Amino acid sequence: MNTRVCVADIKDGLESHDQERLQRALEGVHPADAARIIGTFPPDQIAAFVGIVGVHAAREAFQFLPFETQEKVLEILSPDILGHLVTLLSPDDRADLFEKLDPDFRERLLSLLIRRERQEIMQLLTYPDDSAGAYMTTDYASLSKDLSIPDALDQLRIQAPTRETIYYAYVVDGARHLIGFVSLQDLILAPRHSRVEKIMHREVISVNVKDDIEEVAKLMSHYDFLAVPVVDEERRLVGIITHDDILDVVQEEATEDMYRLASLDTNERIDSPIPKSVRLRLPWLLLNLGTSLIAASAVSFFSQTIEQVVALASMMTVVATLGGNSGNQALTIVVRSMALEEGSLRNKTAIVLKSLGVGLVNGLICGLAVALLSYAWFGNGWLSALVCLAMTLNLASSGLFGALVPITLRKLKLDPALGSSVLLTTITDTGGFLILLGLATLFVRQLMA
Amino acid sequence: MNTRVCVADIKDGLESHDQERLQRALEGVHPADAARIIGTFPPDQIAAFVGIVGVHAAREAFQFLPFETQEKVLEILSPDILGHLVTLLSPDDRADLFEKLDPDFRERLLSLLIRRERQEIMQLLTYPDDSAGAYMTTDYASLSKDLSIPDALDQLRIQAPTRETIYYAYVVDGARHLIGFVSLQDLILAPRHSRVEKIMHREVISVNVKDDIEEVAKLMSHYDFLAVPVVDEERRLVGIITHDDILDVVQEEATEDMYRLASLDTNERIDSPIPKSVRLRLPWLLLNLGTSLIAASAVSFFSQTIEQVVALASMMTVVATLGGNSGNQALTIVVRSMALEEGSLRNKTAIVLKSLGVGLVNGLICGLAVALLSYAWFGNGWLSALVCLAMTLNLASSGLFGALVPITLRKLKLDPALGSSVLLTTITDTGGFLILLGLATLFVRQLMA
Repeated sequence: MNTRVCVADIKDGLESHDQERLQRALEGVHPADAARIIGTFPPDQIAAFVGIVGVHAAREAFQFLPFETQEKVLEILSPDILGHLVTLLSPDDRADLFEKLDPDFRERLLSLLIRRERQEIMQLLTYPDDSAGAYMTTDYASLSKDLSIPDALDQLRIQAPTRETIYYAYVVDGARHLIGFVSLQDLILAPRHSRVEKIMHREVISVNVKDDIEEVAKLMSHYDFLAVPVVDEERRLVGIITHDDILDVVQEEATEDMYRLASLDTNERIDSPIPKSVRLRLPWLLLNLGTSLIAASAVSFFSQTIEQVVALASMMTVVATLGGNSGNQALTIVVRSMALEEGSLRNKTAIVLKSLGVGLVNGLICGLAVALLSYAWFGNGWLSALVCLAMTLNLASSGLFGALVPITLRKLKLDPALGSSVLLTTITDTGGFLILLGLATLFVRQLMA
Repeated sequence: MNTRVCVADIKDGLESHDQERLQRALEGVHPADAARIIGTFPPDQIAAFVGIVGVHAAREAFQFLPFETQEKVLEILSPDILGHLVTLLSPDDRADLFEKLDPDFRERLLSLLIRRERQEIMQLLTYPDDSAGAYMTTDYASLSKDLSIPDALDQLRIQAPTRETIYYAYVVDGARHLIGFVSLQDLILAPRHSRVEKIMHREVISVNVKDDIEEVAKLMSHYDFLAVPVVDEERRLVGIITHDDILDVVQEEATEDMYRLASLDTNERIDSPIPKSVRLRLPWLLLNLGTSLIAASAVSFFSQTIEQVVALASMMTVVATLGGNSGNQALTIVVRSMALEEGSLRNKTAIVLKSLGVGLVNGLICGLAVALLSYAWFGNGWLSALVCLAMTLNLASSGLFGALVPITLRKLKLDPALGSSVLLTTITDTGGFLILLGLATLFVRQLMA
């Protein structure tokens, strides 16, 4: 990271409206770093910055600002600067921005753009949130197959400034059908007298504009691609998705799964204000309250047994806690492997049976351990035997349902992580209480002997 | 994906030892796909495959095979093929492979390599597992600053076949100090009469060979780089890390955090055999058994109160379950933001206070809800009041410790996700039982009135 950039320099340049000084301060600074610095200024200063250094110079840093800051700055820019800046944003970033904007403001902004750009944005906005279309950029390099190698290189020289990458160039026919691709490396290595058609790869791996972005990420991670072309139903090239977008997707998807396993809303951030966090977490807690009352009624149903053998109140919590823990292990491994696997998990029955087996064996071992410890504690052989049996059964059930719940959710086309931990806790808590207290009620005379 | 590849064709070619047929079947097939197909064959058939198509043709697909398969195949290859194949692997993949091999076999393999390669591998093996050095490749493109543009392009043409990428070329001085870089795009766009020195970027963002790979991943994701150069303490260029390695790192790190939050060992896979899964999960379950006995003793301590007011046995499970859920929410959001944040989280006090605040407010709301429901159920006003108070305090504590535990672990240079969920469950379970049953013991006369 460039430590020589002086924030004070930029501030001074801003306050004195000194364009040259600002440009000098930002020279050689990566736009991502420039964004981090100017992102700490208030929106009106950022707007002033855009005005002073000019839209062209400010564009790249602007694209690296967080959305909330972008929106605030856009709202105070003058219409001509606003229109110009938005025109210069890359199509995918622009569509992302538009999607999140307040509808009234979006309309105002759209009216500032020329017709072709307006149509392009409207088109990109029609793709569902998690589709390849929503992530692609339309700024790709393309070549026609008849070009000679020097002409192709000249073409790419012309296209370079406005394209996301020229390291892959796509070959299309007159109707924009994707028929091949060449990398810049191919072009550099090819004999000068050759033609694009002769050196292009015809077996192009592409994705459909409607494909789930998660599947696209798996594909790109499988092939180690720099970029992948996006085509429509007629195999016409409509855009490309690049490696940096996929890195973001992979991070987002992992966050989503983690949040869902922990009953968190994916819109929460570490710095969300308290009222927002409360509002986003509360529905899950209330749902959990509802399901925990099911477990509580199981306990209540056996209150007479607990009154007679009060040690059960201690041991039932141990059986339920370990069931929860073991179920969470099984659930997490299945959910994560679903996210990482290419395509769907193959042998689902084997996974469920294996998960059941692991739960059963661990249940038996933990059951024996808890039986010994509880015998040392309460000196009640029957209690120890029942706790051992309950632990074994509850952990077997946790293994079974830990795999079955996400696999079933996925089969129903639902997110395997969404709500599965609440459902599983209900099963392991209620199950644990029912098994231990039910057994205890059956053998209450022996327990009290 | 190429659906035209016929697995049967490859199998036939293998069985008839028909080199030409095998080569035809694999024509245009991406090595990642070839690996997926031959990966389903038994190791001796894969070894036969390497022998028939030749080491050069087999190398790329071999690099895409999972480690377990690679190891089995290597063990049955003849020494000359073995040495040749290992020589052709890219240095970072080779070092990865060597690190995981059985030590005896590793020695045998090393003895097959020439001295320079042996030294290179030994050097790469000295870097810690999660350092930039362990992930980098030494196959980078480099240029000297005095080259003219056409000469630089010629240099890259020569280097291309053996380099991981030529899209970024690094400029080094006589002592291999990194002094700049040029992208292939820069070279293509530069005037022919210019020189590397004139167009190179001098502000090179690089990482140290000892840097944590997680920090490198954050850097690359921040700048959207294709590759980042790795330097030693004297700023000598020693390797590069490319975008596809970083994608793997990001996936691995996310898996690690998810597994640790669920008390899973990071070596477990969905298809690990039952004995291995049992062995990896059991220590965590036994630890959890130990801590759950702490919570159970809290219950046991108040057994007299439970005997007197048996409804407490039901309500204590509700208070503990919600505490666990709320604590897990707080913990997950802090752990994930630590993984995604660039650098360390800034205002830790604010995060802890906010987490406490969210827990407190949600505790109050859930407390009031459970008070109403429990009043409808048991008709005991004092019980409802105590449950409400216990819920509020336990959820406030879950918010406090949900943030405090990972922040403290991180401060102690430990993984913030490792063991934190077991610790937190112990706090919320034991805390929930102690608060509710402690209050109930104080007010037992009012409860029984």
